[in-house]
Amino acid sequence: MLIDGKSMCSVWIEPDGWSVGIIDQTKLPHAMRTVRLTTLMDAVRAISAMQTRGAPLIGAVAAYGLCLALRADPSDAALEHAYGTLLATRPTAVNLKWGLDEVMAAVRNQPRGERVAAAYARAAAICQEDIANNEAIGRHGLAVIERAAAAKAPGAPVNVLTHCNAGWLATVDWGTALAPIYKAHLKGLAVHVWVDETRPRNQGASLTAWELSHQGVPHAVIADNTGGHLMQHGLVDLVITGADRVTAQGDVCNKIGTYLKALAARDNRVPFYAAVPSATIDFTLGDGVAEIPIEQRGPEEVATMTGRTADGRVETVAVVPDGSPVANYAFDVTPARLVTGLITERGVMAATREALAGSFPERVGR
Amino acid sequence: MLIDGKSMCSVWIEPDGWSVGIIDQTKLPHAMRTVRLTTLMDAVRAISAMQTRGAPLIGAVAAYGLCLALRADPSDAALEHAYGTLLATRPTAVNLKWGLDEVMAAVRNQPRGERVAAAYARAAAICQEDIANNEAIGRHGLAVIERAAAAKAPGAPVNVLTHCNAGWLATVDWGTALAPIYKAHLKGLAVHVWVDETRPRNQGASLTAWELSHQGVPHAVIADNTGGHLMQHGLVDLVITGADRVTAQGDVCNKIGTYLKALAARDNRVPFYAAVPSATIDFTLGDGVAEIPIEQRGPEEVATMTGRTADGRVETVAVVPDGSPVANYAFDVTPARLVTGLITERGVMAATREALAGSFPERVGR
Repeated sequence: MLIDGKSMCSVWIEPDGWSVGIIDQTKLPHAMRTVRLTTLMDAVRAISAMQTRGAPLIGAVAAYGLCLALRADPSDAALEHAYGTLLATRPTAVNLKWGLDEVMAAVRNQPRGERVAAAYARAAAICQEDIANNEAIGRHGLAVIERAAAAKAPGAPVNVLTHCNAGWLATVDWGTALAPIYKAHLKGLAVHVWVDETRPRNQGASLTAWELSHQGVPHAVIADNTGGHLMQHGLVDLVITGADRVTAQGDVCNKIGTYLKALAARDNRVPFYAAVPSATIDFTLGDGVAEIPIEQRGPEEVATMTGRTADGRVETVAVVPDGSPVANYAFDVTPARLVTGLITERGVMAATREALAGSFPERVGR
Repeated sequence: MLIDGKSMCSVWIEPDGWSVGIIDQTKLPHAMRTVRLTTLMDAVRAISAMQTRGAPLIGAVAAYGLCLALRADPSDAALEHAYGTLLATRPTAVNLKWGLDEVMAAVRNQPRGERVAAAYARAAAICQEDIANNEAIGRHGLAVIERAAAAKAPGAPVNVLTHCNAGWLATVDWGTALAPIYKAHLKGLAVHVWVDETRPRNQGASLTAWELSHQGVPHAVIADNTGGHLMQHGLVDLVITGADRVTAQGDVCNKIGTYLKALAARDNRVPFYAAVPSATIDFTLGDGVAEIPIEQRGPEEVATMTGRTADGRVETVAVVPDGSPVANYAFDVTPARLVTGLITERGVMAATREALAGSFPERVGR
């Protein structure tokens, strides 16, 4: 997608043909910096420090991390070490393990001399598959937006509410929740996005708003408290979020606060969709509320905010009194009964065991 | 209530017997500063700049503002001017007009020489009535907390979630939503409070957490996105919020985001109460969602955050990218169907037209 009018992906091979470029997402939206990764440890640090984040993107960068490790040492021992080190960076990320396993499978039975090339080829293919899946999600979601537009006065913007960042920055390109919005905007449909700030890490205000600005998509940032009021007053036509994990019965685990928006959508008859590549569906899980452990993160994410001062410095300020404890749950689970549909690369389907099994029969039981 | 172990109210008469002391709430929680008001314009500035805030407290400070004005000039013309100037500070605050009208009624037919004393007497009585009402709300709400405690294992803390600040800082003393919690804590009941941060103005993190800390009440600050997850996992026994306005049919207008918590409470069978002095009930309104206009405030409240840097400076930082628009709705309306009960100075009652009319027959039709 576009940054200052220039087309970019969120991970790329540098002109030298082997080193890996990423955007340092911890600096956004206040500065656009890229980072060149040349070693395994560069990739490990980039993922651990969340310079690169978003489940699909982490899988791709981790795959390239194996490439960089093999370039330094193509031995089995080095490969196993690199795999373990990368896997430990974000233990709960399902795409991370998938990306690593894909590269491992591609190189394991290759002679040492061909491992590097095989790894780069598989990593590049992972990126291409991600882009293709997201582009397909965009196409299927576009139809949902077009239906919403058809129900409104001609030219009236379709108001879409989204939570967190499930945009191109979280993937290799296009994004998941934002892909249908970009498709609609590119087609000339009037669309306006309500961007939840998404405390405590502010990915909505920091990343989604920044992405939409650079694409020229009309939007407004709102406090996370606002969506219900907007829906009560007919100001939201559609909710589209991403997901970190979807269970076999269609429960959606996503950034904390998603469940509250889904409740408001149901109470106001606003359709609620999660946009997910099928890799995000975990067919081994049923009841998401009962079965998905929710990560608790450090208190500083709630207790502080980072932003830009009037004179341009980036500062972190405490917003909770000293001595007041903080609780920081990262995700919540939206029960399938509140989900109108899942937008996947194979189309839009109901959030039910039957619909998911029917669309992805090869995945059932895995 | 207590600040550093010392008992204080949020407005008081200074030892000189006439000037008015307040806490500068814009400096909390990072600094505790008091302000001495000596003129009408001091009071006007304190209310406009939100150094003093909370509907009941504004009514009391405005009443004292008339006293200060009369002290300088007890003429009818000066009185009318002061009334108009104070009323214009926060046009939507219903208690502000009530406090002013009460003092006006007390002084209007008095000879000039007796107006100042009459005004101070009425303002002091307004403060005493506020304290008495909130203390009664505390007693009635305590019974609700005791019932919740009885349903738990002996000694297990009752987990109460609250939104925004409806504590003693928003009133003259005790608070509304927090009064039952203080009563329970003083009685030795184990109670733990989940404090919603309450973006965009952060009154939960800034004021409620600070109040609870000074009273020694166990609590944890959470992002506004978190309540639904906590309720899904049985970690909330009760929600108690304040209200800015309640309609004759029991709809509750309160800080933006209250409606989302009420939806989650209903979805998880958690009781949801609003604690309100009856002055907050507007018997001229029916359908709150349709009839209550919701104030939109400046974008800087969403686009920036103010806090303390590691080296102790208070800084304001931008958290939304330049050029991204912001929408800032201050309140929302929770329909009566989601409200388990209203905790008033006359007891706990259903949020229905019949219950409210039955408890406040003298108010109906006004």
